[in-house]
Amino acid sequence: SNVEAGMLFGIPLRGTHSHAFVSSFMSLDEITDKALRSCNGSDTCEDFVKLVQTWLSKLQRTNSFRGVFGDTNQSELAAFTSYALAFPDNFLALVDTYDVMRSGIPNFCAVALALSDLGYKPAGIRLDSGDLAYLSCEARRFFCSVEKEFGVPGFGKMTITASNDLNEETLDALNKQGHEVDAFGIGTYLVTCYAQAALGCVFKLVEINKQPRIKLSEDVAKVSIPCKKRCYRLYGREGYPLVDIMTGGNEPPPKVAERILCRHPFNESKRAYVVPQRVEELLKCYWPGSSGKARENLPPLKEIRSRCIQQLDQMRSDHMRRLNPTPYKVSVTAKLYDFIHFLWLNEAPVGELE
Amino acid sequence: SNVEAGMLFGIPLRGTHSHAFVSSFMSLDEITDKALRSCNGSDTCEDFVKLVQTWLSKLQRTNSFRGVFGDTNQSELAAFTSYALAFPDNFLALVDTYDVMRSGIPNFCAVALALSDLGYKPAGIRLDSGDLAYLSCEARRFFCSVEKEFGVPGFGKMTITASNDLNEETLDALNKQGHEVDAFGIGTYLVTCYAQAALGCVFKLVEINKQPRIKLSEDVAKVSIPCKKRCYRLYGREGYPLVDIMTGGNEPPPKVAERILCRHPFNESKRAYVVPQRVEELLKCYWPGSSGKARENLPPLKEIRSRCIQQLDQMRSDHMRRLNPTPYKVSVTAKLYDFIHFLWLNEAPVGELE
Repeated sequence: SNVEAGMLFGIPLRGTHSHAFVSSFMSLDEITDKALRSCNGSDTCEDFVKLVQTWLSKLQRTNSFRGVFGDTNQSELAAFTSYALAFPDNFLALVDTYDVMRSGIPNFCAVALALSDLGYKPAGIRLDSGDLAYLSCEARRFFCSVEKEFGVPGFGKMTITASNDLNEETLDALNKQGHEVDAFGIGTYLVTCYAQAALGCVFKLVEINKQPRIKLSEDVAKVSIPCKKRCYRLYGREGYPLVDIMTGGNEPPPKVAERILCRHPFNESKRAYVVPQRVEELLKCYWPGSSGKARENLPPLKEIRSRCIQQLDQMRSDHMRRLNPTPYKVSVTAKLYDFIHFLWLNEAPVGELE
Repeated sequence: SNVEAGMLFGIPLRGTHSHAFVSSFMSLDEITDKALRSCNGSDTCEDFVKLVQTWLSKLQRTNSFRGVFGDTNQSELAAFTSYALAFPDNFLALVDTYDVMRSGIPNFCAVALALSDLGYKPAGIRLDSGDLAYLSCEARRFFCSVEKEFGVPGFGKMTITASNDLNEETLDALNKQGHEVDAFGIGTYLVTCYAQAALGCVFKLVEINKQPRIKLSEDVAKVSIPCKKRCYRLYGREGYPLVDIMTGGNEPPPKVAERILCRHPFNESKRAYVVPQRVEELLKCYWPGSSGKARENLPPLKEIRSRCIQQLDQMRSDHMRRLNPTPYKVSVTAKLYDFIHFLWLNEAPVGELE
């Protein structure tokens, strides 16, 4: 589905191989086509497999790696080598099929160093299981040692990507622990919106035949706000949105530098005067139905995306923090407030006490 | 989407009107077509609206309802009356648009009693907000009082349906509180599988070119079980499934009344001899790929559904309880156990200590 989304919407795709690709190999003997042209095309390494093996031996014999790993898994080494032969420009290796530190990382380094010999820049590794914070730090240390040991500039800065059912909580926890991850791969939780599997949209009638209508509820937050309305975002001096305000359809819009009373729709005592520095009308009509109203064209996906990012960027940070965010206020004009409560009293049955 | 599912798969549909339908009315004057034929067609009530009003007055004047409600919402009464005129055979009213006990229930009863006069059996009410347990009990009391007061047999047994984002937790809580709900309407949580928005399926390679392959992990539960396998469910004397067992593809299947050793795939000490009274092969091949293996036809949806219900029914109840269920065991044969661990040691790199 992600690949199809990339195709349909031009979203750039990156990726690596599967665990199954790694375990599908048995040994380096399976690789028949061993030649690899150098990055600039000037030269050809006739036996890239041999070059990889040479690098692995060098790594094994190096003092600083003694005790970190011994013999690595040959199935994995064959898979990485084969993958590098096919995608020398984009060698990103999944290193947790057998054992990250004892096999995946050393095998990756052997192949990456061989690629470097031919002028290629390896893309990095992906960690998909285990203690991602710890493993990323260990991997970084290993890469830095390789850079120092063999004088390969930039090898220590190798990209480390982490995945494995990541969501907001795990990212938060990883950031608190400290890690060396450069990129996070987020799939399931992004695509399915796991934390809120359904968007709780309901439709309520607000006006029919020019008559405003209301729906009541014991839960005040569920009382519907009657009338055809307009909605505005009021911005303050510092550029942050201060409050949104709903007005009756026929009320004049809020004006810049003009004081307006914003009322909580249901709580009498909650109100504030606001002098907006900027006023943005929020409601757009993309489906006029049979109203005869002008229909705005839906902007392209890219514009919707950048508007969304921009809207999030301009919110005051305390509205956006993960823990106990300040609720962003949505208010009504004094006139609309009075009308809501008039209609409410009109429709709510009066209790009978004897 | 539910309606379309009903169309496509022949799922029986039930439903009622929306809150917007209720609030779209202003008063009884809006109803122009007031005549309703009696259920058996023998008679016609020329002014059903009047009949409803008469019943509402009777209810209001009755001693036992004094103090429960006064004037009800006329918008709602008009909506219910109009709905009953359109669907006299299927009058199910959503009673929480304004106030359940002071308006929705009395209005419903007035219309339901008028329908009963013409020989129709009202379908009942739906509660979609508020304290469902409390409101259902109050509604039941009201219905029973109506039955007694006006001698309408069965009115006390009126169907009470509850909805409003119901899921397993809320159903559990309602059942613990005690309620008078006859039917639950479950939408969002059923259709979206809210509690688990994505089914975490992954593919791992178990065999390639007749060579078994394994994927290791620090988390033992994620180590893949190599080889092409078969899978059997072993049933005990009482008809419950005891354990599932995986065997290597070439091992003989477990036999009824024959003792077989079932081993935990990774925990050496967890094992048990089982004498199955019935053996069911679980793995079916619906997608043979290029294996040339026979492909079984996917059974129709109805059969899959009844198989699923039957499988759940035959599970031992302690496997199925909501809190701390007994885990159902999946085991391997002794031969497969040995092979997994042989391959594991083969692929896992050996640590280096100095």
